Formats: sequence, structure tokens, C-alpha cells
Amino acid sequence: MAVHPSEAIASLVAHLSKLPGIGSKTAQRLAYHILSMNSQDVRELAVSIWNAKKNTKLCSVCGSYCDDEVCSVCEDPTRDHRTVCVVRDPRDVAALERMRDYRGVYHVLHGTISPINGVGPSDIRIKELMGRLADIDEVIIATNPDIEGEATAAYIARMIKPMGIKVTRIAHGMPIGADLEYTDEKTISRAMEGRREM
Amino acid sequence: MAVHPSEAIASLVAHLSKLPGIGSKTAQRLAYHILSMNSQDVRELAVSIWNAKKNTKLCSVCGSYCDDEVCSVCEDPTRDHRTVCVVRDPRDVAALERMRDYRGVYHVLHGTISPINGVGPSDIRIKELMGRLADIDEVIIATNPDIEGEATAAYIARMIKPMGIKVTRIAHGMPIGADLEYTDEKTISRAMEGRREM
Repeated sequence: MAVHPSEAIASLVAHLSKLPGIGSKTAQRLAYHILSMNSQDVRELAVSIWNAKKNTKLCSVCGSYCDDEVCSVCEDPTRDHRTVCVVRDPRDVAALERMRDYRGVYHVLHGTISPINGVGPSDIRIKELMGRLADIDEVIIATNPDIEGEATAAYIARMIKPMGIKVTRIAHGMPIGADLEYTDEKTISRAMEGRREM
Repeated sequence: MAVHPSEAIASLVAHLSKLPGIGSKTAQRLAYHILSMNSQDVRELAVSIWNAKKNTKLCSVCGSYCDDEVCSVCEDPTRDHRTVCVVRDPRDVAALERMRDYRGVYHVLHGTISPINGVGPSDIRIKELMGRLADIDEVIIATNPDIEGEATAAYIARMIKPMGIKVTRIAHGMPIGADLEYTDEKTISRAMEGRREM
């Protein structure tokens, strides 16, 4: 007998293993679980996967995921449309929305500048951001604090600041609940750099 | 904005969260990954899930998963068809096959006797096992060493032994590479009980 008793199971395990954080053991466990589910539930799972891909659109204003032409954040008249938070991925919008404090809108770049991977400024949605600036007071750059994220933030700031628009960068420092002893040097260094008077 | 920017994403996250070992955070991470995959790969993933459920059959002889009427183990003339290993689930067959040492065949019960859950001997494939005994020399019972597994093993042994067929139980004891200090008392107790002369 091969590793898997059926071609269909082998194929399912192979597909599941490609997902991030799913190793071959987990994939096998999930596959056998799926076989033990009733047909209706399996069908719904498969359909939900395909529908999510097929039905999710990119908001024509900010570029985050939505069901319609324009996302619920961009459509919401109670939000502050003069403040734009720039992020790399749609998943970053979800992370910021979970916080519930931010009342501005977003702009999703769908990537960061990365010369080593051949990604230049024209490959991400910077042009679209520039096109939105007419009615905007502040651009908050929330790309990740890694090399590409910082380079992208610096590039955008350099483009926008001469237009007299306020450009800010989210703070980087000690995460809440963290312990100095176990915090990496780069984070401590950024926390020191960003210190504020009490 | 709701927790998820689109209905389709919310539905996908909900379905993924129902899988074992997938919490809501992992489900969300997987969902966003799926959205970032190309359509062809997403379609293949969805199809592989549905096909696994639709195309996988139960072997008419042993009850494990297969593509055809009879599984590759039961069809294999080089295997020892006079030795049957009894397991609870099809996934147990996969685990035993990974070992590669076992040359006999299998019988999958699809459950274990569990009065507390209303599962009696007639609810699992014991009748089918009895029907196969004519040409069999040894029945190895490999149900799990938990209450239900032990009860099921005892029940099957009581049924089969009077027929003059050898009934064995797989050994339970210290797992290879384990440390006495960190091994639970029940396992140590079983290891002592099952000790053999050197």
C-alpha cells in the first residue's frame, strides 16, 4: 500500500500541506477528519473556499477586500475620510479594525518595495494613493517595521511631504506586556529612540 | 466594519474554524492566504476536498478507505491474509502502514464500544469481522489503550477465542525515546505488567 490508501486522499493531503503552517502530519489529520464529516458539511467547506476567492473583490477606493465595488469602511460616512492609514495587505486592515479605535480610512498597497524581489514603487498601489491625496490631511504609514516596510514608508513620505500633507509613522517599541529581558535589541533600540517626555 | 470585510471571508473563516486544531486566528490566517492564492490553486484545493469525500469508498472486505471496491491491502496477494489486525479508524490503518513491517491485513471497526455514548457491539463492524474468521489464524487487536478501546478488545477476544483462533493485543509500555521521569503512571504500570525476560 502507498502512503495513502486512496488517490483522492493523497491529493487532498498534498493540497492541504501547501497551506501555511500545515505540515504533512496536520494535513493528514485534517484529511481524515474531512472524510469523517458528513457530505453536506464537506460540500459547504469546499464551496466556502471557492466562493471566498470568487466573490471577494478589491475595494475600488482603498484596495482592501470587500463584497461590493466599495468596502464598508470607505462607504461609511461616520469615518474620517481625511485620514488615511497605509498598509501592506488586506489582512493588515482586518488587524487594525479589530482594535476598533481607528476612525480614519485605509489604503492597501498590496506589497512593499523590495528591489531584491524585483518589486518597485510602480508595482504596488502607490500611484492610486497619490490619486487620493486631494482631500486628505494626514497619511499614517503602517507598513511593517522590516526592511521593505521601512523602505516603502520612507519612499511614500518623500513623495507626499512636499505636498504639505502630514505624514506619520506608527510607533515602534516595546509591545504591551513584554519584558525588557526577553525583548530583542532592535525593538529596545527603537523604543529608546522613540521615547517621549512624561 | 464587521470583524471580516466580506461575507465570503467570514463564511470561509467560520468553516475553517470547525476543523480540528484550527482556532479562529489560524482560520483567519488560512483564509487570507487562500485569497492571496491564484484562482486555479484555490479551485484545485476546493475540488480536492470535495473529491476526497465523494470518491473515497470503504473497502468491502476490511472497511478502510480506498478508491475501488476492494483496497490495495486486501487485494495484495503477497500479504498474509490469515492475520488480521483490528483497528478503530481508517486513519489507524495509515499509521500502521507507515511502519512498513506489518504484512497481514486489516479490519476497521469504525468505532469502539462505548455504552456512555450509546455505541454497542452491533453499532461497529464486529459482525463483519466474525464473517471473515473462517480463513484466519490470528486476530491482532490494535484498538487504542483507552477505556473504550480496552472494552472493545475484551469483547472481541471473548467472542473469538472460543473458536480456537489466536487473539493477541498489541503491547503497551514505554514509547521508544521516552524518559521514565516524564512518563505517566498508567503507562509505566502497563510497561511493568508487560515486562519480558531478557
